[in-house]
Amino acid sequence: MLAEIITIGDEILIGQIVDTNSAYISKELNKVGVKVYQITSVQDNRTHILQAFEDAKKHADFVIVTGGLGPTKDDITKQTFCDFFEDVLVEDQAVIENVEQLFKKYQLNKPLPANFRQAMVPSKATILMNQHGTAPGMWMEKDNVVFVSLPGVPYEMKHLLQDEVLPRVIKRFNRPHIYHKTLLTYGLGESAIAERIEEWEDNLPENIKLAYLPSLGRVRLRLSSTGKDEKILKDSIDAQMEVLTKMLSDIAVGFEDETSIVGKIAKILNQKNQTLSLAESCTGGAIVEQITIEAGASSFFLGSIVPYKTELKTKILGVPSSLIEKYSVVSIEVVESMANNCCKLFSTDYAIATTGIAGPTKGDGRDEVGTVCIAVAAPRGVISEKFNFGNDRYRVIEKTINKAFEMLLKEISKN
Amino acid sequence: MLAEIITIGDEILIGQIVDTNSAYISKELNKVGVKVYQITSVQDNRTHILQAFEDAKKHADFVIVTGGLGPTKDDITKQTFCDFFEDVLVEDQAVIENVEQLFKKYQLNKPLPANFRQAMVPSKATILMNQHGTAPGMWMEKDNVVFVSLPGVPYEMKHLLQDEVLPRVIKRFNRPHIYHKTLLTYGLGESAIAERIEEWEDNLPENIKLAYLPSLGRVRLRLSSTGKDEKILKDSIDAQMEVLTKMLSDIAVGFEDETSIVGKIAKILNQKNQTLSLAESCTGGAIVEQITIEAGASSFFLGSIVPYKTELKTKILGVPSSLIEKYSVVSIEVVESMANNCCKLFSTDYAIATTGIAGPTKGDGRDEVGTVCIAVAAPRGVISEKFNFGNDRYRVIEKTINKAFEMLLKEISKN
Repeated sequence: MLAEIITIGDEILIGQIVDTNSAYISKELNKVGVKVYQITSVQDNRTHILQAFEDAKKHADFVIVTGGLGPTKDDITKQTFCDFFEDVLVEDQAVIENVEQLFKKYQLNKPLPANFRQAMVPSKATILMNQHGTAPGMWMEKDNVVFVSLPGVPYEMKHLLQDEVLPRVIKRFNRPHIYHKTLLTYGLGESAIAERIEEWEDNLPENIKLAYLPSLGRVRLRLSSTGKDEKILKDSIDAQMEVLTKMLSDIAVGFEDETSIVGKIAKILNQKNQTLSLAESCTGGAIVEQITIEAGASSFFLGSIVPYKTELKTKILGVPSSLIEKYSVVSIEVVESMANNCCKLFSTDYAIATTGIAGPTKGDGRDEVGTVCIAVAAPRGVISEKFNFGNDRYRVIEKTINKAFEMLLKEISKN
Repeated sequence: MLAEIITIGDEILIGQIVDTNSAYISKELNKVGVKVYQITSVQDNRTHILQAFEDAKKHADFVIVTGGLGPTKDDITKQTFCDFFEDVLVEDQAVIENVEQLFKKYQLNKPLPANFRQAMVPSKATILMNQHGTAPGMWMEKDNVVFVSLPGVPYEMKHLLQDEVLPRVIKRFNRPHIYHKTLLTYGLGESAIAERIEEWEDNLPENIKLAYLPSLGRVRLRLSSTGKDEKILKDSIDAQMEVLTKMLSDIAVGFEDETSIVGKIAKILNQKNQTLSLAESCTGGAIVEQITIEAGASSFFLGSIVPYKTELKTKILGVPSSLIEKYSVVSIEVVESMANNCCKLFSTDYAIATTGIAGPTKGDGRDEVGTVCIAVAAPRGVISEKFNFGNDRYRVIEKTINKAFEMLLKEISKN
């Protein structure tokens, strides 16, 4: 069975927002065996939307449409659904009550007329009640193809998809199983990996597909397959993954979803009952943000400091100013002192420290833009390295994050 | 003139990556007067790609294709271009030299055979040399429609688009001007805004389009128009924006691109020669990350601390432990102490402090999940507020960030 996702909104086509909904929907559909054939983003324009609906009907059994359900005049999805399904808008009492309840729950003023416009829905639609917003979802059918309309606000879309759409999809459609497994590797390029695993890749079973996903300092290798028997499917991919992981044992850090590199670090530190702190200069909080965004970091992560101004490295972190003067603020000597003192300040077993020149200007450093020093302080001593990560600010920060996690993981993995 | 973007890659359709390239390309094309009609994401599948090319040719004059140009076997874009344009792959000497130079520049080992596969290109293509990666871009034409192929790696795509594609687009096509201007507002909902500006909205000139872009605690209002005369276009939108900004003067914080809320804060603090520090508990570094991601923060931002473990609020930030015991770690009393002491520790004029229960578990707090206290310490004293931001971790963090910036901006804007 095939699905298509259609996202509606000029804001996508002028690049004002990044469409993150499609990735979320695709991933969730895959989990229940629904393959997404295509994702299409179209304008807030009746003719264009209708054309996209007609095209989708040709190759998909199930079409998810997001966006264009707001209470304001630029939102035209509901009227266009009526045109496509030869239907009319009628007032739905349950939606009115939902709007009133939401306003009460969040202690807002009385609903405005515009809010009640949300209760006008196509008469033939099955209404999918939205517990987290005023726009309801809709489920409609034409020539055996199901069309679902969801709000574009990610939080509301996610809840409606999970609570109302997926259970109905599971009931309504026969679906195979789809299984992906992705190995995370750090430290070797795509071509070098391809050369090393060439013979194995050439002999992969026909129904297993390998994909390479390179990014800064990291390559992900994904095996995918589709089939009727979930167990056979998983067993065959798991077996191939085992072979692959052995061939790449020096660069493999784990499997995606199961473990991000932060997840793997968390697991090891929790097992060893050890702790981590951070002193970030050039990464400016980008590492701490990645650690704390997921829940549960407090078991191993105690805290961090961003001494953005050079003097604060001395004042709060206790890096001797003589060291900074002698070796410059971007130096092995300073970054090691930052890491060691960070361990002491936060009373942790490990600390990561970064100092560098992310650019575009050189700041207080003496080296070229892109120069970065990273240190990991550990019970057995401090390790550090100096890099040049090029002259693009975002890449410098991103590469520093990946390298810092890689260095820490290597250190805590030692016995 | 109309463009279409086609992104190739199973990783998009299974939700493994979010397609950020399309938003970047759309925005850049808009700047030179090219309207994007549609964005389509398709699988690594020859038939599907060819179908998407045929469809795009029907409604666009210019098609940008990204992805599928890697050196590994799952990348089939070049061969599919050959099929579509009835062409064959030939070896390009300049690409070979580029690959060799790149390996030398980054001090890598010798290029592998897979790397040289990048030099096989369609014979009719104009090659767009890639200074930052081994995969070249391609520019080809069929029935007066231009097709451009770019690598999917964002950094390489961006450079090729700027250096090679946009200058050629400007030369090759007649384009109108497209102008967008977006007002940022904080603190009022979409429907309430719509009601307040209804009369003005109904009387907008036909060629100016208004869009509402709501997100957590924030609504963006965009005016868009297309025309031949850039000055007339800008003047008419600027005039309407002035009216709109006056109507919403209590909630408007500035214009997007021109000024994000961080940009506006930076501008005011720089003008006043004042400084900022942060003590983030529940936001775990998400605020500092937003401040430092753009270059130039060091002029007003001195540093930050994430005292993730409760004891560190006492040890490093000097919050009396008696205060924490008496009022709990998530309280007005504690957050104000955090903000005041943060100012002292970093010697700044202002400090933001956050403490709360982002969830899913309650941690050391006594209140419900979603409870957040935010304080802003300022020369005239400290202000603070307690909120409940619901039970979704990401939303709680996001709302806290937006509210903290809103509170700080209000405070520094006072005379």
